[in-house]
Amino acid sequence: MKTLNLDLGEKSYPIYIGQNLLNQKELLTNHISGKQVMIVTNTTVAPLYLAKVKTLLSSFTVAEVILPDGEAYKTLDTLNTIFTALLEVRFDRSSMLIALGGGVIGDMTGFAAASYQRGVDFIQIPTTLLSQVDSSVGGKTGVNHALGKNMIGSFYQPKCVVIDVNTLDTLDNQQYSAGLAEVIKYGLLGNADFLTYLQNKVDGLMARDKGLIIEAVYQSCFDKADIVAQDELEAGKRALLNLGHTFGHAIENTLGYGVYLHGEAISVGMLMAAKLSALEGFITDKEVQQVEYLLQKVNLPITISSKIDYQDFMAAMSVDKKAIDGEIRLVLMKKIGQAFISNDYQQHNLEQTIKDFL
Amino acid sequence: MKTLNLDLGEKSYPIYIGQNLLNQKELLTNHISGKQVMIVTNTTVAPLYLAKVKTLLSSFTVAEVILPDGEAYKTLDTLNTIFTALLEVRFDRSSMLIALGGGVIGDMTGFAAASYQRGVDFIQIPTTLLSQVDSSVGGKTGVNHALGKNMIGSFYQPKCVVIDVNTLDTLDNQQYSAGLAEVIKYGLLGNADFLTYLQNKVDGLMARDKGLIIEAVYQSCFDKADIVAQDELEAGKRALLNLGHTFGHAIENTLGYGVYLHGEAISVGMLMAAKLSALEGFITDKEVQQVEYLLQKVNLPITISSKIDYQDFMAAMSVDKKAIDGEIRLVLMKKIGQAFISNDYQQHNLEQTIKDFL
Repeated sequence: MKTLNLDLGEKSYPIYIGQNLLNQKELLTNHISGKQVMIVTNTTVAPLYLAKVKTLLSSFTVAEVILPDGEAYKTLDTLNTIFTALLEVRFDRSSMLIALGGGVIGDMTGFAAASYQRGVDFIQIPTTLLSQVDSSVGGKTGVNHALGKNMIGSFYQPKCVVIDVNTLDTLDNQQYSAGLAEVIKYGLLGNADFLTYLQNKVDGLMARDKGLIIEAVYQSCFDKADIVAQDELEAGKRALLNLGHTFGHAIENTLGYGVYLHGEAISVGMLMAAKLSALEGFITDKEVQQVEYLLQKVNLPITISSKIDYQDFMAAMSVDKKAIDGEIRLVLMKKIGQAFISNDYQQHNLEQTIKDFL
Repeated sequence: MKTLNLDLGEKSYPIYIGQNLLNQKELLTNHISGKQVMIVTNTTVAPLYLAKVKTLLSSFTVAEVILPDGEAYKTLDTLNTIFTALLEVRFDRSSMLIALGGGVIGDMTGFAAASYQRGVDFIQIPTTLLSQVDSSVGGKTGVNHALGKNMIGSFYQPKCVVIDVNTLDTLDNQQYSAGLAEVIKYGLLGNADFLTYLQNKVDGLMARDKGLIIEAVYQSCFDKADIVAQDELEAGKRALLNLGHTFGHAIENTLGYGVYLHGEAISVGMLMAAKLSALEGFITDKEVQQVEYLLQKVNLPITISSKIDYQDFMAAMSVDKKAIDGEIRLVLMKKIGQAFISNDYQQHNLEQTIKDFL
């Protein structure tokens, strides 16, 4: 097992990464100070891992809430289902929430923990590659609004993150590839060596070699923890983690949530960011092609599947959380492995990039 | 104008108290760093003060959302109305929310600010006595759940609080009395001198003498700010501010929100806390009668208007946020002007107190 510490002062917490971690109850119980534990999971994950996690918690009062699976359910209404479950069993401010599932479960459980009785503890047990390398680490929690993704939420840190890569055994290939999109992102935005590593090991990763997966998850979490520790509330550097996300969110928002998996939308979004970076003269067309090649190699989309109206796409981009007073800020690449935040790009280059993809 | 500072390190903020403050635009504008301002108010307050506040903000992009009035609308659904309004005008993370209204508006606007794009700034302009002396100060924000009051929310501090006591000119007598319940609370829980002052000045306060009102609001905010500065997240001392509230919330919850105003329920709740304190031998029956006399003198209820089932009442008390692992903690009075938190009372004394009132 590898342990990473996300350094946030009093809010610091460990991230445990390895195989068979769902057999080690102290990874959870060492972080639970009260007696009441609510496991939040979904209809897909519950049959696979709920019983296993419950056996680790035999000394606590354990309740569970099983939500429908999917980004479409990442709403205030579903959040209220969690509150109702907590209140029906009269759980109080000393209770602990455990998020058992992918990013949607993690984001909603985290926001529920942030908001239930103005804040209770929670633990992340991410069971998808995407959530293991991204959403479970760093404390971004929340739900979607009909008019925008992740528009409602909070920065709220878990007590620990338990990443058992064996849970990926039950993850289908499409979901696995979607997770690799965020892994590749860390290489593109700040770690050229890691990107080279991924390019070299891509066949092994696609064959799901456990050693390679642990290494990729560890390096991704390491890079993310490093950035989050410097800028928890996204006042500056943390926004780099949104490479591909302003484009990607606009794709998800205009196509409708669920047409693309989040990682798939981010794949196209990263390629759009790369193409705009090339139009702006920062990287070469050949480097864009290398990005495109790697994304294709891990079975990620590099085009938008349906026609989207340009104005709709721009409108969706302008509500992105990185916008300031209406201006769209984008994460671009100065070179491969070095991203930066820009509001200084040529508008016609942005327009050309978008139109090339629509 | 009197200015109080609530000392919370980086989150510190001023509380301005006086007459005609809604004519002084810099009290607001000095605290607004972006360009977009959303005023959140309700159908009762909007015709009275919305235009006035908007004239102060002529240099900003101003939008408004006018909610239905009443505790019954303090819900996640209404909160979503605020998010929709913000997203429809594409307000971003640099936007400012202004709560213009009573406690319900303040609590919801604060929670909306805490949660919109994971946190934007907000300002409190409380227009009821209750919100001026209680909910606008200290950063408790949130909404109710069908199964419990204020069960969903966050600790989130405003940038400033602007208390123009002239807004009380449009407050009806019932609402004014409800506000005095919280004023009296500060005397009972920690300031015997202030309680004596209120007993001496009660006729002037009921005649709405502006000088007395400013003094009473200032002292209430002073006492609250002092406690909040010591314990922002209610890990200890802050719970003293809930004197009468565990009983009061159970009254509101079992009767149904809206039967009693919050301050009215707290009036009965404080009297219940006083009676239990007497049964426990801390204060005398005569002192209980003095509390009862003062509450009656300001036209507050001292009994519960409808029959409530004992088991229902106990169940409502046990979901109170001060409960820990299911145990009900209560704020009792060691003596008049000195409250403390107890889980060490005789169960039969609690039972007798409740049954005396049901």
